[in-house]
Amino acid sequence: MAHIKIEDLKNFCAKALVQEGMDRGHAEIVADVLSSTDAFGTYSHGTKNLHNYIRKFRVAGADIKGQPQVVREGSGFAVIDAHNSLGMIPAVEAMELACDKAAQAGIALVTVKNSCHFGAAGYYANLAAKRGMIGLAFSNVDPNMTIPGARSMIIGNNPLAYAAPATDHPSLFFDIALSNVASLKVVQARKDGLEIPDNWIVDKDGLPTTSPANYPEEGAMQPMAAHKGYGLAVLVDLLTGILSGGATSMSGDIVSWIFQLEKPNNVSHTFIAIDPALFGVENTAEETAQLAGKLRNAPKAKGADRIYTPGEIEWGKYEKAEAEGIDLPADVEESLRGLAEELKLELPLF
Amino acid sequence: MAHIKIEDLKNFCAKALVQEGMDRGHAEIVADVLSSTDAFGTYSHGTKNLHNYIRKFRVAGADIKGQPQVVREGSGFAVIDAHNSLGMIPAVEAMELACDKAAQAGIALVTVKNSCHFGAAGYYANLAAKRGMIGLAFSNVDPNMTIPGARSMIIGNNPLAYAAPATDHPSLFFDIALSNVASLKVVQARKDGLEIPDNWIVDKDGLPTTSPANYPEEGAMQPMAAHKGYGLAVLVDLLTGILSGGATSMSGDIVSWIFQLEKPNNVSHTFIAIDPALFGVENTAEETAQLAGKLRNAPKAKGADRIYTPGEIEWGKYEKAEAEGIDLPADVEESLRGLAEELKLELPLF
Repeated sequence: MAHIKIEDLKNFCAKALVQEGMDRGHAEIVADVLSSTDAFGTYSHGTKNLHNYIRKFRVAGADIKGQPQVVREGSGFAVIDAHNSLGMIPAVEAMELACDKAAQAGIALVTVKNSCHFGAAGYYANLAAKRGMIGLAFSNVDPNMTIPGARSMIIGNNPLAYAAPATDHPSLFFDIALSNVASLKVVQARKDGLEIPDNWIVDKDGLPTTSPANYPEEGAMQPMAAHKGYGLAVLVDLLTGILSGGATSMSGDIVSWIFQLEKPNNVSHTFIAIDPALFGVENTAEETAQLAGKLRNAPKAKGADRIYTPGEIEWGKYEKAEAEGIDLPADVEESLRGLAEELKLELPLF
Repeated sequence: MAHIKIEDLKNFCAKALVQEGMDRGHAEIVADVLSSTDAFGTYSHGTKNLHNYIRKFRVAGADIKGQPQVVREGSGFAVIDAHNSLGMIPAVEAMELACDKAAQAGIALVTVKNSCHFGAAGYYANLAAKRGMIGLAFSNVDPNMTIPGARSMIIGNNPLAYAAPATDHPSLFFDIALSNVASLKVVQARKDGLEIPDNWIVDKDGLPTTSPANYPEEGAMQPMAAHKGYGLAVLVDLLTGILSGGATSMSGDIVSWIFQLEKPNNVSHTFIAIDPALFGVENTAEETAQLAGKLRNAPKAKGADRIYTPGEIEWGKYEKAEAEGIDLPADVEESLRGLAEELKLELPLF
């Protein structure tokens, strides 16, 4: 397996984006999000997508020169129009602005409309945790999930993430989509010719199936925990598309950022920051670490070696990546090599 | 089946509480929460519990004279010490205060510590929706759920709820706990001698079981969607017990409000209100109704008659209860009759 230093991967991404025409400041933001996401081991949302983001810019599906703009704000909120810039750019601006406001108000919410795929939601939640705050990040996505009683793709599996400062790890953090499993797992089972559990997808009639053979041409993912995941997916649309005045996942106005490269993705995001320092608790990060310790030290189930707290696995991978470089799975390496060759950039793998 | 008018049930509850020594204002708040909850059909959290709340007051497990107190506040937040009052009283105060602040700041959060069971979270979310706002309500509870890798009851199945105004129904609303099913369903299966799905509970070794025979003496509920429900339960503890400086569900300081009547329940709640009017969207309630309409009109699964949007079933029951009175299940009727007899109060059933 090939490896790369986090910093080298970040520099590679930034160079590629600058060479394509992005402002250096924006390129460094995107590069940091993508390389950090790989370091956390969330490869599906990391640098593997860079080549496709660049292809999307080239066919004007996203605006490489897009400048997010605050179009409305008050003491505890703001609305940002992303103007079809790549999602990491308005997302970082939005969470930093939410933290600035939360430091005064206790809590603040910044919502973003007319945006494009922002990668992994957890990155933005962690921006707040780095500032000693609780961060929440939400995005809607193109419809890919059914809802109870329906067939076909009706609503997005709208991701949400949170992070909170803790003294024993850089943060307690958590990043999920609201389907039972990621779409990629279903596609992989199809490639491998395997059956799947009956709560992963529905077939063309909207009925649970153990066969991935016709997915994604037919059928849709199932919401996690049935109506509970459905209700939470609706909440994410309320907090993003409805509140920002942007598009909701069931509106028909959000398309796949990757399968329809030439069209604006048109997603909405929302970021909430809460500053515990204002609430009168002496050391929230220490309290949070104690809470996490109680979870890790709970009596183990038969056969279980250990209990993980949210984000512990990801921080473990991050620390390993910092010390030894990021392990690059074959598909990520292939995508990066293709981009390096095309742009004639050095890719310092080892 | 016995029936009662919503207003008559509310008056009965208020009278009972006043007779026990509660301020009339507080009694009317509690009575409205409990009778509305029955009208929505959420009987497990409604007036059935009133007799036990009163028993709890009598053994000083909760303070019938408790006066919630704002102990800290800023432009977008407040912390309330419930002083062991019954949870509905600080909860209503907290959500109304959150709405007042959100009308200025865009979003506000009010957290409550040292509280007692507040009934159904959805009631408070709907207070915000009645004021044209998006409302979120959270509470931690005594530990009743395992976490991945653990055995026994480690964390609460911490409920959360939201509501948003919509022009076609009084609100879009949603109220869940974070276990796969309610504990009562497991207990009912045990009574009926039935097997249960293997994702409802774990046995004494922390392993999934289809036998409810030893629950709740042994074992624990499973989080919904495994690690996803676990992570969300931790989030609720961060937003409630950690942020308020109160107790978290895994601290050992929260006990069952009902099985340990003589002890303070010691839960924490949190309420968030968001005022869409400040965000520049013309008519959020109309947008939300359109979104709900898209969901209801989605292509149906084979054999499915209709698709429900969050809260639609509950509002349907509420409207029926307004027109025809509340249907009272036998256990609710029995509890109310017992209380009426004890307090020599009229219970106008029909």
